[in-house]
Amino acid sequence: MDFERHFQSELATLKAEGNYRIFAELQRKCGAFPKVRHFDASGEEEVTVWCSNDYLGMGHHPDVVSAMVDTVRECGTGAGGTRNISGNNHLHRVLEAELADLHGKESALLFTSGYVSNWAALSTLGARIPNAVILSDEKNHASMIEGIRHSRADKVIWKHNDWRDLDRKLKAVGDRPKIVAFESVYSMDGDICPMREIVEVAEAHGALTYLDEVHAVGMYGPRGGGISEERGLAHRIDLIEGTLGKAYGVMGGYVTGSTAMCDFIRSFASGFIFTTALPPAVAAAATASIRHLKASDIERRAQRDRVARLRARLDAHGIPHMPNDSHIIPVMIGDPVKCRMISDILMRDWGIYVQPINYPTVAKGTERLRITPGPLHSDADIDHLVDALATLWTQCAIAHAVA
Amino acid sequence: MDFERHFQSELATLKAEGNYRIFAELQRKCGAFPKVRHFDASGEEEVTVWCSNDYLGMGHHPDVVSAMVDTVRECGTGAGGTRNISGNNHLHRVLEAELADLHGKESALLFTSGYVSNWAALSTLGARIPNAVILSDEKNHASMIEGIRHSRADKVIWKHNDWRDLDRKLKAVGDRPKIVAFESVYSMDGDICPMREIVEVAEAHGALTYLDEVHAVGMYGPRGGGISEERGLAHRIDLIEGTLGKAYGVMGGYVTGSTAMCDFIRSFASGFIFTTALPPAVAAAATASIRHLKASDIERRAQRDRVARLRARLDAHGIPHMPNDSHIIPVMIGDPVKCRMISDILMRDWGIYVQPINYPTVAKGTERLRITPGPLHSDADIDHLVDALATLWTQCAIAHAVA
Ligand SMILES: Cc1ncc(COP(=O)(O)O)c(C=O)c1O
Ligand SMILES: Cc1ncc(COP(=O)(O)O)c(C=O)c1O
Repeated sequence: MDFERHFQSELATLKAEGNYRIFAELQRKCGAFPKVRHFDASGEEEVTVWCSNDYLGMGHHPDVVSAMVDTVRECGTGAGGTRNISGNNHLHRVLEAELADLHGKESALLFTSGYVSNWAALSTLGARIPNAVILSDEKNHASMIEGIRHSRADKVIWKHNDWRDLDRKLKAVGDRPKIVAFESVYSMDGDICPMREIVEVAEAHGALTYLDEVHAVGMYGPRGGGISEERGLAHRIDLIEGTLGKAYGVMGGYVTGSTAMCDFIRSFASGFIFTTALPPAVAAAATASIRHLKASDIERRAQRDRVARLRARLDAHGIPHMPNDSHIIPVMIGDPVKCRMISDILMRDWGIYVQPINYPTVAKGTERLRITPGPLHSDADIDHLVDALATLWTQCAIAHAVA
Repeated sequence: MDFERHFQSELATLKAEGNYRIFAELQRKCGAFPKVRHFDASGEEEVTVWCSNDYLGMGHHPDVVSAMVDTVRECGTGAGGTRNISGNNHLHRVLEAELADLHGKESALLFTSGYVSNWAALSTLGARIPNAVILSDEKNHASMIEGIRHSRADKVIWKHNDWRDLDRKLKAVGDRPKIVAFESVYSMDGDICPMREIVEVAEAHGALTYLDEVHAVGMYGPRGGGISEERGLAHRIDLIEGTLGKAYGVMGGYVTGSTAMCDFIRSFASGFIFTTALPPAVAAAATASIRHLKASDIERRAQRDRVARLRARLDAHGIPHMPNDSHIIPVMIGDPVKCRMISDILMRDWGIYVQPINYPTVAKGTERLRITPGPLHSDADIDHLVDALATLWTQCAIAHAVA
């Protein structure tokens, strides 16, 4: 077989569909965020980022930066081994205790990323609970889907956020061990699940609940414990999974739950066991970030204010955006080529960076700009973004009229 | 189902078999390595680590530490997004260029870990090359095994390091796309593959070669390019995979190869696409480490000297260790309970930390101590370790004689 030719022809197909991904090359600068340097063929320039998942700017918070710097100086750059073989650092244990406390759970287990935590935990639960069935919300993240696939457990997909459908499907499964897997805030639409109903349905059927709070931790609840904290439901959920790479501004993932469950995953999950542990300095930075957001509401409040302001300004200009109760503002485009084109114009002519979100991150036909205002976006930044979008929308309307 | 009870009973089985893992809780200290602080129920004490995979102590090298510290101060703690959505940092691109150069390849692609790079690359190649068969060495690492499993491609296992068996099996597969997956230095036995023979056999059958150099990068070859560099074979291998978490002392993984292949993996691998990128500071530290080990042989030479000295001293005391051509010294115990017991005594009575290596990291019955001397182990450290082992061996012999 001519492997090179196969690779090239698959890439050509992506390009023809408009789904070939071009990464914007950036460099963030402490103190300047959300302004960053953008590198391209023509050189470097400053742009404003509007699509970061460092939702609260914690990646630049002085306490978080200091924790990381001090720990690198003190303990070096890496963990030096897997958790089992010389890589289990005191600072990992401190972070795990912090995470268990965040969600009011007995125990927590750290992974190298949120992706790996979902993949490893679901594949272990699915494979090692005999005869298990996993009931998965149809919009679950790729990391959950791949974990379920890897487990080879039976999988039943229920309609997005539809607890009645879940109820019917749980009933149909009958007397087998059941795992209900879902998210709180869905990343691309920004909608929030009907958590109480889902939990009650799962309880009625004796199912284990597996909740991904990746886009909610740090962001919701009085201590940043996510939607499950905000709604007083955390104690009724068996496993809460999260990331340290979004609102907490660092990197890593985790699961929390009972001591036996965490120990079970620790003991059997290949993706936990056979990999170098997170650098102690990453753990220390994440701990500092969680502690800060447990105690302070400043960033969350500032961020909410920015979200509300941007939504109001978009409405005032008739720029359509998907309504939801979260901090994520999807502006729908519905075509991959247009979506990339708008993004390119924003970058080139306006110094605004919003990555086009195309397939496979979202379904074909639902391509969008996904805008995530942060506490550090100024009124002027918001005005500039809305001006840019309004101008583009007008030009498009004219283009439509002429065509 | 009573999930808790299931978790507890599976853990009880592990404990009864002697395969329950207990992590030693450590804290490394820059400048003091291989001495570290060990935390347990009775408090804290200093111990000497003999099982680190920070093989060359680069995790404490001043250039690597400074690169990480400076970048955290300059750019913050996290990447703030996936590579596609605002997380593609200039420093990731610099590191990828460095890695491509290290292996003499057109291109490189960074992952959050070596585990994820193997899992994601093999699952993508196996799933997206129609009708592919993956021929996998029987001792390949868990991350490769899981990647192959996830791809659902047909898999053929060949006898460890046996290129004649590989040849027969390639022939038997016939006219399908074939991928040959193997490692250079096998982690647990420390043996090195017959790379030239494997490559020639693969070439004869038109197979794509996939080589894991995780335990060899930084360690072998004039610039640390691994066994493939040392033997002048890198240009004949299609994909070279490695880690930034072992000899380079930081964290992360990568693949290198042709531009089309890396772009193909970049475009289709779920484990690459849907996860927060490595912190820029981690990328900067890894770049500094690779650059240092490209230019300097000091750490490698010092380390080799330590390995030779320890082997000679073990021989002088009649302590059996597995012969091999690498830096890894396996001392075989062959029983999980004994292996843990010896490790516990070394820690408690001698201030020596060598983690017992039990199932599933190695096959049952081949439990061992895996010793990895570093450039910073002193003559006195070596003498102390050999004294401890010699004492234990004598006591065991006496115990055997009495029993
Ligand atoms: C819902 C969801 N879960 C998990 C992840 C993975 O988390 P991480 O970026 O820490 O790998 C993501 C995004 O990256 C996500 O959107
Ligand atoms: C052969 C081999 N490949 C890959 C890995 C995974 O690399 P990482 O620790 O960077 O995840 C390991 C060990 O951890 C390994 O021993």
